[in-house]
Amino acid sequence: MTADQTKEHPPVEALVFDAYGTLYDVASVTALADEHFPGHGSAISEIWRQKQLEYTWLSSLMGRYQDFWQLTASGLRFACNALKIELGEDALRALMENYLQLAPYSEVHEALKTLSQKIPCAILSNGSPEMLLKVTQHNGFSKLLKEVISVHELSIFKPAPQVYQLAVSKLGISKEHIGFVSSNAWDAAGAKSFGFQVFWINRFNRPPEELNLPPDHNIRTLDEIAPLIFRD
Amino acid sequence: MTADQTKEHPPVEALVFDAYGTLYDVASVTALADEHFPGHGSAISEIWRQKQLEYTWLSSLMGRYQDFWQLTASGLRFACNALKIELGEDALRALMENYLQLAPYSEVHEALKTLSQKIPCAILSNGSPEMLLKVTQHNGFSKLLKEVISVHELSIFKPAPQVYQLAVSKLGISKEHIGFVSSNAWDAAGAKSFGFQVFWINRFNRPPEELNLPPDHNIRTLDEIAPLIFRD
Repeated sequence: MTADQTKEHPPVEALVFDAYGTLYDVASVTALADEHFPGHGSAISEIWRQKQLEYTWLSSLMGRYQDFWQLTASGLRFACNALKIELGEDALRALMENYLQLAPYSEVHEALKTLSQKIPCAILSNGSPEMLLKVTQHNGFSKLLKEVISVHELSIFKPAPQVYQLAVSKLGISKEHIGFVSSNAWDAAGAKSFGFQVFWINRFNRPPEELNLPPDHNIRTLDEIAPLIFRD
Repeated sequence: MTADQTKEHPPVEALVFDAYGTLYDVASVTALADEHFPGHGSAISEIWRQKQLEYTWLSSLMGRYQDFWQLTASGLRFACNALKIELGEDALRALMENYLQLAPYSEVHEALKTLSQKIPCAILSNGSPEMLLKVTQHNGFSKLLKEVISVHELSIFKPAPQVYQLAVSKLGISKEHIGFVSSNAWDAAGAKSFGFQVFWINRFNRPPEELNLPPDHNIRTLDEIAPLIFRD
């Protein structure tokens, strides 16, 4: 990114972050799944995550919203069934509760402190209000965030445009002046489609989506945001 | 399935079939991809199919419909990029055109002939009208089908309920009396959510979805439909 590139964009007056995979590292799920089902941790977490997302999209399109906690449990059940692993109630509970205690990526705390001293920062997530409250409190981020916004009150998931509009309404800042930060390429595309200024955090060198909705900024960590939006 | 089970269901007065993976065997895509990119056929076709579906769900939720031909090409581009394979225009064209010439599964022609002699049969598919026309003509199925219905006129994909409603409108038969047949578990769930009587063709012993929308009938091939719906 060069200074010239930032000049094309309106000033960013607030930042809105996706939660899972963007602020919070979901890799611990793999390790815990491997403890419960040795040798299957990677496969479980991969299928689990994929189904969790698919179920948000499918239930949204069917008009049959269930909250993210329920769909996350359903995704885990599917993954174990697909792998012919018997998932007992104890393992289900342990793996689910891990979601309430995810650690942030290493740079996140410092980066959020720096950014939130200058402009309002918020979370906008598929997570249910209780899930978001617990993981945010667990990491001591509550005081750094002006809003922790869940899709729950709309009964639909990302990338429906009304979800992104919710952040505009809660923050009272127009969408052109909101920077949206996500590691999920499809979420970045949804936010771009809506009209946010989008920062795609590509930590793991993943391929971009082919939806003709490229992000405004391709970056690797949250540390790269401040130099892009603050001139001095 | 026993005769008792069929008694619970209202009589089926028309059958509506999903196309890709249900009537038409998409496995030839893998073989052709392997010819073009030896050793990568399975990986390409797996990622390709997954992204093709994801893009239908994501573009529907964003309210940014692109037709299935375009999204199928986008899915293929993503798959090759993810695998660091350079996809030239010739390979793209060859792989895409294969979609217009897919062969049916072995029992499909005979089963469709039997069923269509008794009640109207139709296709309801995400495919664009041109894609459906070509593959249907290629297989000589046109005369067996009362309607070949594409989602295209609605600018949204399955499992949005208005897509399934389109079949009701075109056939003029109430949804309780329509049997919907799909190999795609998520499509079967969407059709069940809408209110069709659902036949899930599980050819490859796949795990069911965990969406609390089980099909009315779990079967392996189209041959099993006639005994379930015709009493004599």
